[in-house]
Amino acid sequence: MLINCVAYQNGKRLGDIPVEDISDYVVRPECFVWVALSDPTQEEMDQMSEEFHLHPLAVEDAHQGHQRPKIEEYDDSLFVVLHTLEWASEEAGAALQGGEVDIFVGTNYILSVRHRTHKGFANIRARAEREPELLRHGSGYVLYALMDTIVDRYFPILDGVESELEQIEERIFGSSTARSNIESLYGLKQKLMVLKHAIEPMMEVTSKLFGGRVPLVCSGIQEYFRDVYDHLHRIHTTTEGIRDMVTTAIQVNLGLISISENEVTKKLAAWAAIIAVPTMVAGIYGMNFKHMPELDWVYGYPVSIAVMVAIDIWLYLRFRKARWL
Amino acid sequence: MLINCVAYQNGKRLGDIPVEDISDYVVRPECFVWVALSDPTQEEMDQMSEEFHLHPLAVEDAHQGHQRPKIEEYDDSLFVVLHTLEWASEEAGAALQGGEVDIFVGTNYILSVRHRTHKGFANIRARAEREPELLRHGSGYVLYALMDTIVDRYFPILDGVESELEQIEERIFGSSTARSNIESLYGLKQKLMVLKHAIEPMMEVTSKLFGGRVPLVCSGIQEYFRDVYDHLHRIHTTTEGIRDMVTTAIQVNLGLISISENEVTKKLAAWAAIIAVPTMVAGIYGMNFKHMPELDWVYGYPVSIAVMVAIDIWLYLRFRKARWL
Amino acid sequence: MLINCVAYQNGKRLGDIPVEDISDYVVRPECFVWVALSDPTQEEMDQMSEEFHLHPLAVEDAHQGHQRPKIEEYDDSLFVVLHTLEWASEEAGAALQGGEVDIFVGTNYILSVRHRTHKGFANIRARAEREPELLRHGSGYVLYALMDTIVDRYFPILDGVESELEQIEERIFGSSTARSNIESLYGLKQKLMVLKHAIEPMMEVTSKLFGGRVPLVCSGIQEYFRDVYDHLHRIHTTTEGIRDMVTTAIQVNLGLISISENEVTKKLAAWAAIIAVPTMVAGIYGMNFKHMPELDWVYGYPVSIAVMVAIDIWLYLRFRKARWL
Amino acid sequence: MLINCVAYQNGKRLGDIPVEDISDYVVRPECFVWVALSDPTQEEMDQMSEEFHLHPLAVEDAHQGHQRPKIEEYDDSLFVVLHTLEWASEEAGAALQGGEVDIFVGTNYILSVRHRTHKGFANIRARAEREPELLRHGSGYVLYALMDTIVDRYFPILDGVESELEQIEERIFGSSTARSNIESLYGLKQKLMVLKHAIEPMMEVTSKLFGGRVPLVCSGIQEYFRDVYDHLHRIHTTTEGIRDMVTTAIQVNLGLISISENEVTKKLAAWAAIIAVPTMVAGIYGMNFKHMPELDWVYGYPVSIAVMVAIDIWLYLRFRKARWL
Amino acid sequence: MLINCVAYQNGKRLGDIPVEDISDYVVRPECFVWVALSDPTQEEMDQMSEEFHLHPLAVEDAHQGHQRPKIEEYDDSLFVVLHTLEWASEEAGAALQGGEVDIFVGTNYILSVRHRTHKGFANIRARAEREPELLRHGSGYVLYALMDTIVDRYFPILDGVESELEQIEERIFGSSTARSNIESLYGLKQKLMVLKHAIEPMMEVTSKLFGGRVPLVCSGIQEYFRDVYDHLHRIHTTTEGIRDMVTTAIQVNLGLISISENEVTKKLAAWAAIIAVPTMVAGIYGMNFKHMPELDWVYGYPVSIAVMVAIDIWLYLRFRKARWL
Repeated sequence: MLINCVAYQNGKRLGDIPVEDISDYVVRPECFVWVALSDPTQEEMDQMSEEFHLHPLAVEDAHQGHQRPKIEEYDDSLFVVLHTLEWASEEAGAALQGGEVDIFVGTNYILSVRHRTHKGFANIRARAEREPELLRHGSGYVLYALMDTIVDRYFPILDGVESELEQIEERIFGSSTARSNIESLYGLKQKLMVLKHAIEPMMEVTSKLFGGRVPLVCSGIQEYFRDVYDHLHRIHTTTEGIRDMVTTAIQVNLGLISISENEVTKKLAAWAAIIAVPTMVAGIYGMNFKHMPELDWVYGYPVSIAVMVAIDIWLYLRFRKARWL
Repeated sequence: MLINCVAYQNGKRLGDIPVEDISDYVVRPECFVWVALSDPTQEEMDQMSEEFHLHPLAVEDAHQGHQRPKIEEYDDSLFVVLHTLEWASEEAGAALQGGEVDIFVGTNYILSVRHRTHKGFANIRARAEREPELLRHGSGYVLYALMDTIVDRYFPILDGVESELEQIEERIFGSSTARSNIESLYGLKQKLMVLKHAIEPMMEVTSKLFGGRVPLVCSGIQEYFRDVYDHLHRIHTTTEGIRDMVTTAIQVNLGLISISENEVTKKLAAWAAIIAVPTMVAGIYGMNFKHMPELDWVYGYPVSIAVMVAIDIWLYLRFRKARWL
Repeated sequence: MLINCVAYQNGKRLGDIPVEDISDYVVRPECFVWVALSDPTQEEMDQMSEEFHLHPLAVEDAHQGHQRPKIEEYDDSLFVVLHTLEWASEEAGAALQGGEVDIFVGTNYILSVRHRTHKGFANIRARAEREPELLRHGSGYVLYALMDTIVDRYFPILDGVESELEQIEERIFGSSTARSNIESLYGLKQKLMVLKHAIEPMMEVTSKLFGGRVPLVCSGIQEYFRDVYDHLHRIHTTTEGIRDMVTTAIQVNLGLISISENEVTKKLAAWAAIIAVPTMVAGIYGMNFKHMPELDWVYGYPVSIAVMVAIDIWLYLRFRKARWL
Repeated sequence: MLINCVAYQNGKRLGDIPVEDISDYVVRPECFVWVALSDPTQEEMDQMSEEFHLHPLAVEDAHQGHQRPKIEEYDDSLFVVLHTLEWASEEAGAALQGGEVDIFVGTNYILSVRHRTHKGFANIRARAEREPELLRHGSGYVLYALMDTIVDRYFPILDGVESELEQIEERIFGSSTARSNIESLYGLKQKLMVLKHAIEPMMEVTSKLFGGRVPLVCSGIQEYFRDVYDHLHRIHTTTEGIRDMVTTAIQVNLGLISISENEVTKKLAAWAAIIAVPTMVAGIYGMNFKHMPELDWVYGYPVSIAVMVAIDIWLYLRFRKARWL
Repeated sequence: MLINCVAYQNGKRLGDIPVEDISDYVVRPECFVWVALSDPTQEEMDQMSEEFHLHPLAVEDAHQGHQRPKIEEYDDSLFVVLHTLEWASEEAGAALQGGEVDIFVGTNYILSVRHRTHKGFANIRARAEREPELLRHGSGYVLYALMDTIVDRYFPILDGVESELEQIEERIFGSSTARSNIESLYGLKQKLMVLKHAIEPMMEVTSKLFGGRVPLVCSGIQEYFRDVYDHLHRIHTTTEGIRDMVTTAIQVNLGLISISENEVTKKLAAWAAIIAVPTMVAGIYGMNFKHMPELDWVYGYPVSIAVMVAIDIWLYLRFRKARWL
């Protein structure tokens, strides 16, 4: 689906242009064309390929989607694949849903193709058009703006994951050592895996856009890409930290389960003793020996009961002191 | 066993040729010869070695099989070893069975030798012959087509492994914490090991065919090899992710076993208490003291039974509330 | 908030200067200006940006705070971000609280902006002013003095963490295998994560200031930065060591919990036996058979009690010997 | 102990020569001398050192033994240390015993010194003498032949270790979860450590003999050393794989032990219930209340017994269904 | 404390010289001065600094001690920090105590400053003086002799640690699965950490003294430093191996604890059954039903006892067979 197809001159919007005219604008050196597609059909991709003279391998990748984040140079143009992440639903602990943005960048055009994403990039275009002095940098700057926005959208994801860990930690060290904690930790680990598999190749991609030899369209605004890289690095470090804590939390949870079992065993043992001792005493006085002097004694029964109670109180206090009860 | 032996000129099939004529076609610069062998005998290998002037160390490797994936340059020709993986049977959870494809590539010949593989590469030849404009690139393009097919055949394996993990996850967090889960996870780990040992050296092999100095036969189609590398990288990342989740799943399963034992212990303790208390009470009234006023009371028996039942109901409700039952 | 704004000439203090005059002093080659801000407002940052001609991306970073430690070169000037760590409160086992110091360094100015830190750097200025022969090195030396102080403030943090581990170790191998040990170890792991995330990028930063090509303002005093790096390296090695021991301690604690459960089970089993045996014997003599010769025997009762006691003493000694009791 | 001392000319054996004549043959450019020692005395080493003009540090290393695998260049000559591994005895699960082969290689001599090895290298010499066209390559080829043989002798070791793991796996997933499995896994881990410590430095050694700048004596036969390296790489990959599986097996075994304990606890609980319920019922009818109508009923006894049996059968079936029994 | 201050000429001892004359000897090219200090005072360090013209940063480091192993070049002179390890006491399992040796090396002087070490280096000086042909190499050779001795003193430490692991292994697989094993393994891990933190930076230090560009004072005797590096590498590999086995041993010990608990549970269950069955039977015949024919039967009592004993013998044999007892 075609979202936008706009031509710009010296950082100012010339206006929407029909797709067939793209090739006319692309050849004018002071112009650049910015096209946005969303889940395109084969026909749309073919038309774009023709207008922009895109490389067939890149077009095939962009049409199929499901590429890993990467950057490829085809002569003067770049083909960039980025991953997006969105919560599948609004509720807490929801699953992560991955999308993909494929970007073709030439000296005077930029074509973004997004797949399976919910949020669009209309606000980027709006903001860029309000800052013509930056937009004058051309397609490289638009690439930066897209990457910056995609990366910044990772931060709320990261915050969600972080606060999920905090909630699980509270539950772990709180009352429950339940089955659900383990399940949550496992789910968190899966989300972190998704994050990691999105972030790491994107760092690799971004690192090729500043420092050393950079593609032509990105020269002059390297510091902006370094800034994107810094954000990615921060996300990556935090992700790794959470991963490490999740691993520790799983181990720690295991330990607490053992402790809790230990406590149950102790309680069980203590109550078993408290019940077994009177049972034993009662058993003894239930014996049918002819000659058992206590049995004939008037106070035999109350005294035996008193002894049982006394032993039990003593046991109870001892177990209490030893923190078995 | 000789599968095919065909000569091509300018991307078009000239026709099957007898093995003895190979050396005549190889010297014609505009031709190239594409030979496919399967589990060859010593005689076949010797004949090929003679016709193509192959290096004896490479021929020995190709005849023995059981090499690790590698790429070796002998002057202008390449010797490439790739691993294939197939399910040993159709049923779910079947074992993986490894095969090997050894490829000799020269400027105008390509010889593929496959060992212990079920599926052949006839469809590659068919497709290549339908696209003479690509086949015109010569032996390098055929090498690409072979590698691309071999790598693409890993994806269903990967999907199988992924869905196996998902099934085990469901079982783990479902009802059963059985012995079979652990066994399945162990088996999965073994399969992932096989995948890893096939993928990693193949990535190393492929990375030598694009970027920087590449062998002569691959120059001009580097972007195709980069595409194969990208697929391998995607498989590798997914494999590593599954490996990590399997490790976590084993740990998590351990935790769930402990929790389940905990629950059994609690249930055991609760029922023990419910049975032990009436036993104790009954024991007390089974004592043979002469002077036990309750014993002579008409309602002694029903009241004692009522007390027992009352205590047990109270215990049951308490344990229920504490989720021990 | 502006803390200080002082001009220096040849290592000697010229005196406080108003912010508006900064640009006049900065152009004088023999002078340098040292400004310190703390949690600055937007206006203060804008003013500084204007006076010192700072790069807009760096100014934005410094105003927002929450950057990871990094070093960036903008032409002749440096932008350095460092992290500080302070205990949130005085009591033992308190949480760590991270702050940030952003430093702009030019040939003849240095501007430090600190965020969320409690302790200032007034003592650095005082010491530097007492050593004019060192201060003569200019802004590079001040950068060194700031970094050295920030890094040296990590050592008491490290000592605190180390002694916390030692206390936990004592508790682990001492009497208690309690829930609190695990919680402390988890908390310690979190602190080490914070330390690691502060130290590692700072090592990367510092390593760019000595050896090989270094920024202009740091040339001539590279050995000082190598010294800072050495301190960071020492902190890093110790942190890694503690991390490793914490992981081991968690495992070891788990083992001790199991041992302790084992001991409880043994104790439970031993006492159960000691109680159950007399109960069984009593049960036998509680049977109502008509013909039980022992029942009529005068010494039946005392002998049976004696047998019970004897068996229990024997059991007690055996369990004692087997260290079950 | 001197094993052999033979001079060769153009790949053909000239015959055994006395040790004192070595220096005469070494100076003749078309000759080369191949000496083999086993656990030499100080005198033998000194004599060799003198005849071949060996470097004193290398001689000291070779005499002492107990070096790690390494390669050192002294001017035109090489000093290579390799490790051998042999089973200490023929029986399954035997310990590994490490030996050492120190090799001095010059342009026209090769001296091998083996320590603590059982198997010699006589078959290498025999084979080399049967292939004079290869032996013509000189001392470099003999070095290759020695390394190739030493490396190939690792394969049966590896097979032994692999089949040992398979046997343990069978036992783990079979009936026994015994103490002996853990002990075997620990022993296997130790053997893998020995293998790893032998293989890894040998890979480093071999990698210096092909590709890039290679020592003079190895030039021209680099492809042979690459072949040795490939074998080592295969052994290394397999070893790492087994190591990984052993770690997993230890964890899995732990899980199975927990499951087995779980099963025991369930069985214990089930039987305890089956015994406790009749005991409770019997206790109730053992009470001495005067007014217990059932006691006087003629069918009281058989009915009570029937109730007990009925409850127990019901319990038994329930536990059976729940797989506790 | 000054230990020695001696001047040498052409490898021969000239004799002890007063500290004030050092600067006179240092300027004479054919001489070199070798000074040894132990835990020096500030005054001693200042005097040395003046006589040898040492760099103030290095002097400060050497006086404070507590540096990590490192090597620093100051123009033509080197500053080397090495760590020593000694057993805190003679008894087995004693703690490790770290010391430090700081060495200043110039073209014709060497100054060693040792901190917190028990053993001195007098024997190095004695041996060096007996070998004037080696001592002629000058200060570089003395540096080698010091490093060689310090590294060689690690071997007995390593042997001690290795034999400690072996003892623990024996105890683990022997009878006891006690608390003390875990504590010993934890202590061993701590010692290995100390070893690792001493060895790894020392390898880095040593690797800068051979191969590639080396400091002037070490040129010509690079092979000796490579030898020291080899020893360090061997220690490092062994240490890593032991570390790995300790981790495995902790896990294995955990497994054995679980097995042992399993066995206790089984024993407990078996004996509980053996006691509970007669109790139940006795309970049944303790019921007070009027009509219980067995009770009136003369052989009722002995037969019931016989039945109890028979059941118990059968149970005992069954448990024995199932290895629960």
